[in-house]
Amino acid sequence: MTYRGFINFLCLGNRAVTILNRSSGRLHIQMGIRNIASQAESGFNPAKVAVVTKMTRYEFEQQRYRFSELSEEDLKQLLALKGSSYLGLLERHNIHTRNVEHIVESLQKEGMEVRVVKRGQYDEETVRWADAIISAGGDGTMLLVASKVFNKDQPVLGVNTDPERSEGHLCLPVRYTHAFPEALQKLRRGQFRWQWRQRIRLHLEGTGINPTPVDLHEQQLSLEQHNQAHRITLMEAQSSEACSLSKPYLLPVRGLNEIFIGESLSSRVKYKSFKPHLTLSLHRASYYEISVDDGPWEKQKSSGLSICTGTGSKAWSYNINKLVEQAVGEVLRIGNAQMGLDIPLSQELIEKVTDEYNKSLVFGPEEGRMIFSIREPIVNRVFSSSRQRGFANRVCVRSRCWDACMVVDGGTSFEFNDGAIATITMNEEDQLRTVLLEN
Amino acid sequence: MTYRGFINFLCLGNRAVTILNRSSGRLHIQMGIRNIASQAESGFNPAKVAVVTKMTRYEFEQQRYRFSELSEEDLKQLLALKGSSYLGLLERHNIHTRNVEHIVESLQKEGMEVRVVKRGQYDEETVRWADAIISAGGDGTMLLVASKVFNKDQPVLGVNTDPERSEGHLCLPVRYTHAFPEALQKLRRGQFRWQWRQRIRLHLEGTGINPTPVDLHEQQLSLEQHNQAHRITLMEAQSSEACSLSKPYLLPVRGLNEIFIGESLSSRVKYKSFKPHLTLSLHRASYYEISVDDGPWEKQKSSGLSICTGTGSKAWSYNINKLVEQAVGEVLRIGNAQMGLDIPLSQELIEKVTDEYNKSLVFGPEEGRMIFSIREPIVNRVFSSSRQRGFANRVCVRSRCWDACMVVDGGTSFEFNDGAIATITMNEEDQLRTVLLEN
Repeated sequence: MTYRGFINFLCLGNRAVTILNRSSGRLHIQMGIRNIASQAESGFNPAKVAVVTKMTRYEFEQQRYRFSELSEEDLKQLLALKGSSYLGLLERHNIHTRNVEHIVESLQKEGMEVRVVKRGQYDEETVRWADAIISAGGDGTMLLVASKVFNKDQPVLGVNTDPERSEGHLCLPVRYTHAFPEALQKLRRGQFRWQWRQRIRLHLEGTGINPTPVDLHEQQLSLEQHNQAHRITLMEAQSSEACSLSKPYLLPVRGLNEIFIGESLSSRVKYKSFKPHLTLSLHRASYYEISVDDGPWEKQKSSGLSICTGTGSKAWSYNINKLVEQAVGEVLRIGNAQMGLDIPLSQELIEKVTDEYNKSLVFGPEEGRMIFSIREPIVNRVFSSSRQRGFANRVCVRSRCWDACMVVDGGTSFEFNDGAIATITMNEEDQLRTVLLEN
Repeated sequence: MTYRGFINFLCLGNRAVTILNRSSGRLHIQMGIRNIASQAESGFNPAKVAVVTKMTRYEFEQQRYRFSELSEEDLKQLLALKGSSYLGLLERHNIHTRNVEHIVESLQKEGMEVRVVKRGQYDEETVRWADAIISAGGDGTMLLVASKVFNKDQPVLGVNTDPERSEGHLCLPVRYTHAFPEALQKLRRGQFRWQWRQRIRLHLEGTGINPTPVDLHEQQLSLEQHNQAHRITLMEAQSSEACSLSKPYLLPVRGLNEIFIGESLSSRVKYKSFKPHLTLSLHRASYYEISVDDGPWEKQKSSGLSICTGTGSKAWSYNINKLVEQAVGEVLRIGNAQMGLDIPLSQELIEKVTDEYNKSLVFGPEEGRMIFSIREPIVNRVFSSSRQRGFANRVCVRSRCWDACMVVDGGTSFEFNDGAIATITMNEEDQLRTVLLEN
């Protein structure tokens, strides 16, 4: 029986857990309820661990100039001319690399088989092979790792390999970066809890849709792929089964943080020419219609629409919605004046109100609902919006955009043009199994 | 003497204006102070008028599919499959076209020589030829027209050719769209005022800068241009005059609305390959340092930085900064609770406070100062920002970005990567001469 099969067997009941301690060979039987923190879980001791590493900025710069006919010396000079940043880039790169080595050595000391995979090489085969996957980077790397995991039993851990530069919301507490053996020990002893992060799924329908995903991080568009998908779409439309296009198509992605819908965030390539033909309209407004929880359709115009999970409520959505003290203070001042009050507003009060407001934007990763947020709504004669933000279990969006897309976790994008309809929901099957380790 | 020379001659004094009425041949001499509304200006009667027209969405869709091997019939079918939008596109296109014809006929009836120029053909030669330039489209077309005008004596007018769809902040009042002869009459009689819209200028310095502008609307990147500019930059850096790169370079653009600085809004092309190599990171944070009015440098991380004029304070900057009633209501509620007040908050009060707050974001187009706004500031251990928004006469920004750019009026972009420093100021020479016509 594979290790995963074994854990599945063990977890059938919430109340009884059995641990097979691999190193000692002894079988422990423990009774306990799943949510008792100290003995919450059976020990976690994967045999095969994939470590997926981020691309550092140093590596990015190297790659960027690779094709510009500059020699390595030219490159060094060019970067050096920019002042301290070259040395800084190298320093961050080395810190990351050392932290990755620390993780790998710790895993190997525990007798685990380790496969280190750069983000560009991470694929479904890695996911199939591994008993557990460790993301060694920042939150971006965690999002990438999660993007190829569709089995809610597959455990994923994040380790922040540059805590001074990276927030690491999705990673283990920062202290484990340099003390990874401690983390492994706690995992082995069951001194942790599984955290089941809810994710978003997407159905796409409507005429002229193109379900071909574009990987923004791979940074390559396949001309053939675009052409082909486009022709197939048209041919299907012309055939007698044209109506089949209107069946909702479940996209092969899950949003761990959020889905973002907006105008002109994709590139368009001239199919008959190799000259790149790019449409980049930085702040052309996005037009769409939205229906929340099967409510009435509303026409809207904005900088875009974000639908986030509890996990994502601390990410981009948080930054879209949060208020700064300057704005809060001004609102309270105007409010007091309008209400005829003469109460002085201390900086402390303004801080408290700001904090309380911003806290209300965040909710738990395990909650089975989403928050939709309209970024920079544009209100005028034609367009209105009743709510700029709210909870939802189901969001439907109909595109009225020229050249827009839906972006999942900032990493994968889908065309979402005039006529397409997206249905955004959650399903328990899509949960991501991560680790909650006390600090 | 050219017409423009004549007007220059006449305007030497603010207090005396002379009108030569072209149609009657009579010379009127009028005394008046420049800011008396009814006889505010000498009559405006240009001999040569360029009419620059926008590209409608219908034309955009036609162009988009031109190279995808679809026949015109295929195209019609594909668009028709999307439902009503095809007919809608055509309708808007026809409305725009009719309004352009109305403008052209009205000008020709007045004996003016008219040159109709599509936005793609509009160039410096058009600007040199014309006594006055009319933008026939929406605000976007006005921005384009303004982008090639550097002489503050060159008059520019905007006519909104689709008032039902376009806001037209920069255009004449909507009624003149269908009654353009009335506008011409008022102009002829001097029943208008010149509005001198202040604009922003940019100096760029620092090592490794690339002063080659990328025209986002032309939607084409010249591979040769990129290569060449890049090599020249490096060669200059290597030469003994390397220090000359650090002298501030005045960019050949002026911002009528705003300058926006942000991460990964440009595309990057692999020089040695024709496969497009695109870096699109929709919400990778922008890192930079900012100094306002020669104040201390502050490290910041955000979704980007906007510096706008009075004109632009009603545009993108407004949408970045404005608050919705939902947020204002919540802040007032929390504030009241924190202050221990038990005052009910009516919807009317919330509306008033919201309106007053949002009004405070707008200032006059003729004011010689700018507003800087930080879009979605990210505050954490490393980064802080004292103010999210404020007035400034001078803003310096040092890029710490991977792959960012500075975008002027949403139309022209410049690389702005690690090491580059932008100095953003205003100069009276850069004013744009537009028309203020009463409704």
